[in-house]
Amino acid sequence: AEKPVLFSGPCAVESYDICIEIGSTVKELAERMGFSYVFKASFDKANRTSSGSFRGIGMDDSLGVLERVGKELQVPLVTDIHESYQAAEVAAVVDVLQIPAFLCRQTDLLLAAGHTGKAVKIKRGQFMAPEDMQYAVDKVRSTGNNNVCLTERGFALGYHNLVVDMRSLPTMRQYAPVVFDITHSVQQPGGEGGSSGGQKQFAPFLARAAAATGVDGFFIETHPEPAKALSDGPNMVPLEKMEGFLSMLKDAWDLGRKHIDFTI
Amino acid sequence: AEKPVLFSGPCAVESYDICIEIGSTVKELAERMGFSYVFKASFDKANRTSSGSFRGIGMDDSLGVLERVGKELQVPLVTDIHESYQAAEVAAVVDVLQIPAFLCRQTDLLLAAGHTGKAVKIKRGQFMAPEDMQYAVDKVRSTGNNNVCLTERGFALGYHNLVVDMRSLPTMRQYAPVVFDITHSVQQPGGEGGSSGGQKQFAPFLARAAAATGVDGFFIETHPEPAKALSDGPNMVPLEKMEGFLSMLKDAWDLGRKHIDFTI
Amino acid sequence: AEKPVLFSGPCAVESYDICIEIGSTVKELAERMGFSYVFKASFDKANRTSSGSFRGIGMDDSLGVLERVGKELQVPLVTDIHESYQAAEVAAVVDVLQIPAFLCRQTDLLLAAGHTGKAVKIKRGQFMAPEDMQYAVDKVRSTGNNNVCLTERGFALGYHNLVVDMRSLPTMRQYAPVVFDITHSVQQPGGEGGSSGGQKQFAPFLARAAAATGVDGFFIETHPEPAKALSDGPNMVPLEKMEGFLSMLKDAWDLGRKHIDFTI
Amino acid sequence: AEKPVLFSGPCAVESYDICIEIGSTVKELAERMGFSYVFKASFDKANRTSSGSFRGIGMDDSLGVLERVGKELQVPLVTDIHESYQAAEVAAVVDVLQIPAFLCRQTDLLLAAGHTGKAVKIKRGQFMAPEDMQYAVDKVRSTGNNNVCLTERGFALGYHNLVVDMRSLPTMRQYAPVVFDITHSVQQPGGEGGSSGGQKQFAPFLARAAAATGVDGFFIETHPEPAKALSDGPNMVPLEKMEGFLSMLKDAWDLGRKHIDFTI
Repeated sequence: AEKPVLFSGPCAVESYDICIEIGSTVKELAERMGFSYVFKASFDKANRTSSGSFRGIGMDDSLGVLERVGKELQVPLVTDIHESYQAAEVAAVVDVLQIPAFLCRQTDLLLAAGHTGKAVKIKRGQFMAPEDMQYAVDKVRSTGNNNVCLTERGFALGYHNLVVDMRSLPTMRQYAPVVFDITHSVQQPGGEGGSSGGQKQFAPFLARAAAATGVDGFFIETHPEPAKALSDGPNMVPLEKMEGFLSMLKDAWDLGRKHIDFTI
Repeated sequence: AEKPVLFSGPCAVESYDICIEIGSTVKELAERMGFSYVFKASFDKANRTSSGSFRGIGMDDSLGVLERVGKELQVPLVTDIHESYQAAEVAAVVDVLQIPAFLCRQTDLLLAAGHTGKAVKIKRGQFMAPEDMQYAVDKVRSTGNNNVCLTERGFALGYHNLVVDMRSLPTMRQYAPVVFDITHSVQQPGGEGGSSGGQKQFAPFLARAAAATGVDGFFIETHPEPAKALSDGPNMVPLEKMEGFLSMLKDAWDLGRKHIDFTI
Repeated sequence: AEKPVLFSGPCAVESYDICIEIGSTVKELAERMGFSYVFKASFDKANRTSSGSFRGIGMDDSLGVLERVGKELQVPLVTDIHESYQAAEVAAVVDVLQIPAFLCRQTDLLLAAGHTGKAVKIKRGQFMAPEDMQYAVDKVRSTGNNNVCLTERGFALGYHNLVVDMRSLPTMRQYAPVVFDITHSVQQPGGEGGSSGGQKQFAPFLARAAAATGVDGFFIETHPEPAKALSDGPNMVPLEKMEGFLSMLKDAWDLGRKHIDFTI
Repeated sequence: AEKPVLFSGPCAVESYDICIEIGSTVKELAERMGFSYVFKASFDKANRTSSGSFRGIGMDDSLGVLERVGKELQVPLVTDIHESYQAAEVAAVVDVLQIPAFLCRQTDLLLAAGHTGKAVKIKRGQFMAPEDMQYAVDKVRSTGNNNVCLTERGFALGYHNLVVDMRSLPTMRQYAPVVFDITHSVQQPGGEGGSSGGQKQFAPFLARAAAATGVDGFFIETHPEPAKALSDGPNMVPLEKMEGFLSMLKDAWDLGRKHIDFTI
């Protein structure tokens, strides 16, 4: 039977130990609850608000950790790329290349990702109408690669605030499968002076809403100690809360699937 | 056991025949599916985009029809008021006074509504932050009337477009029970040159999303022939689709209730 | 020669003394610098964020003060009305009836204002596309009253923030003369918890921008001691700064007029 | 005496002939009217809405044309870069590296541009609060390069629409000199299905407004036949209109400079 995809892990590849702890825990939960699991971690935080923020342990070391985690857990991997030269090197290790929201109109990056033959996951820009994401999908498909999906993570509602427009989910599903990014949808860009803040208290509400609306997968960053995470701490789901979160999410996803064809 | 409230009926009091047809049909569905039903119809469409549009059959005739429908069906009634002088006269007939979204900051109107002792249902302005609705609630409560609820119907996302920010639902529930207005949330203000358009294809998606997020009731306008309705036709749920719609909605509401206390 | 209109005075009719002090000072400046002056003060602050805020000294006393100021200074008067029953009574005293932004779609209010035969000044709603203001103008004109103008005061840019879209000025001038409201354009709705804040440091910049874009008049609230004003204090121009402000404004208005017909 | 900077040319390096025609015409106008001229053309249109659109004649050929135009006209050059590997190669030819709005948070790109020692011109993202642009400036300055300026080109006001918030000009001038981009400020992203539309009728109004507000320079794309331009045609100023446009612009800039220190 069809299952929702779960992209989940720490924000950044902080270390092998953190990655394997998170990955093994989430893998077990995902299997038990009926999600298809993909381990996620970024090898580079390329667009931090300020340049003094943590960017990662380096591309080579990060890819090494990712590869090891993927092999040990026997799970597919997703990570984001920021410039086209990274596509081939990263694709040698991971299964899904994620295109950051700010970069969803960069033709070279989309083409480079498409040419690797790996799956391409494009985040909707905070400045893009949902229906304009079809052109990003088309750019990837022009390389002959049809393995592409879209991700909703909020649109600019004035300054320092993002809103999730649930209409974007059925709109974008016309073009490709759609993942709901629970973690970044509650981000508040630049909201804390030099770094982005968050409203993680809204994560369960938005997650239920998107799941009930109808999506194909979810993206959740998690960490055993969010307050100590080296990035995105304000938005992450604590690892110990993931069991309850996934249980709720699966329930809401089943409801969305049941009613998704109802029209008026 | 607790039930969601369903405010439903035609947009305007077009005639007794239409009102009783809609009211009796929806009452039967609501009872069968576990909603508390309140019949809704406006006695005056006071803020149409252009002055050439249908405004209603007149206040006296409309209130007469409302009263007759309420007695025959033995259901409570809701209608909106636009100026403070209307509060007492309308409150003599209906059980719930609705404050239109554009008017949610009009102190005199809120106080006049509060002083009637009837329930007051305030729609969030398309220009109001969710947390600022607490001041509207406080204005009504300052009259000694605690029977007040809020309604979400979308916020201005640029011109000719509204977005439902699902975060508004838990935010506003801190102050009062919250109703989700399915019909007006898919409106596009002034989107058709001289009248407002709509995207009713999104109504089932937004309805599921809001119900799963967690609300206390729903507002749905319905009509046996939306294309012939004298106002809001583009957004209304056809009467024949109400059974399926309410079934889906109750399902999603149950899910929202089940998980509403989950936090991270 | 053509002159810009200057609507100016305190926010509210606090007292005769304050009104005559402000009115006589601004009248002298306006005449010297080439503006047509209209004295402004509100008789009722009907839509304060919270009901505990100052609302005014009462309608009768306020209209009495307004009438006395108008006669002594020999200047026309403007004030806002909030419900249709006020139109005739207020029109007996003032020359221009102002329709608040939140109320720009209230048909009865627009018609009542139009029927008085006095000039009607309609503020653009914080939720209205510029081109939709034509319908508000049409409603007034349907009464046979062609003496109508529009006012720009900002559009909702997310929560607690307004943006002045300078494109609205030429767009709305297609329908009626346009006034730029300097004071409310720098307001931040509900931005200070229970009352609206402001960014008055931006007032000179936005005023120059709007004047250079091309408008027909300006609205400025002023007070000898803004910090002690009973409403809108955070946004008002100190009375002692009005000479410099009007001098700058006239300079920019002349520039706007000089180039207003340039097209590409 | 201080002069405003004028960045101007065709959108893309279509050919040497077009570039030299535009460059020589604009250079003469700029000198006569008191602007410091910088010739602009893009060597690659890397973020077109759809991949079928014209992207350019290739990086090598484009840089060759740019270099020739710069030498023949004896004017400095600006062009945009999209990935960090381009910075050094492009900096060998041009004087100013422009960072596209979508890329204003890409740390590597900002650092690579900074390290070239050439001037860096950063466009405000359509999703960035004005005050957050200070972090982009800081990233460039962290390389020891203090030659950096910012550019305003509009913020996302809902879907398919941008608004110029004139408050951004004084806000961003706290961090670096500010250029107003007249051409892209009237763009409508994705507004024409697969390509971006524009409202060039508003260009003179927004240009006057920004100049009167107070900026340090302007960016204008121009073409002898905008309808035949290979990109951005809907927004460009016809070359034959540039004389009138620049004359108006200088007039408004002088006014802005005269009053820029007025505060209340």
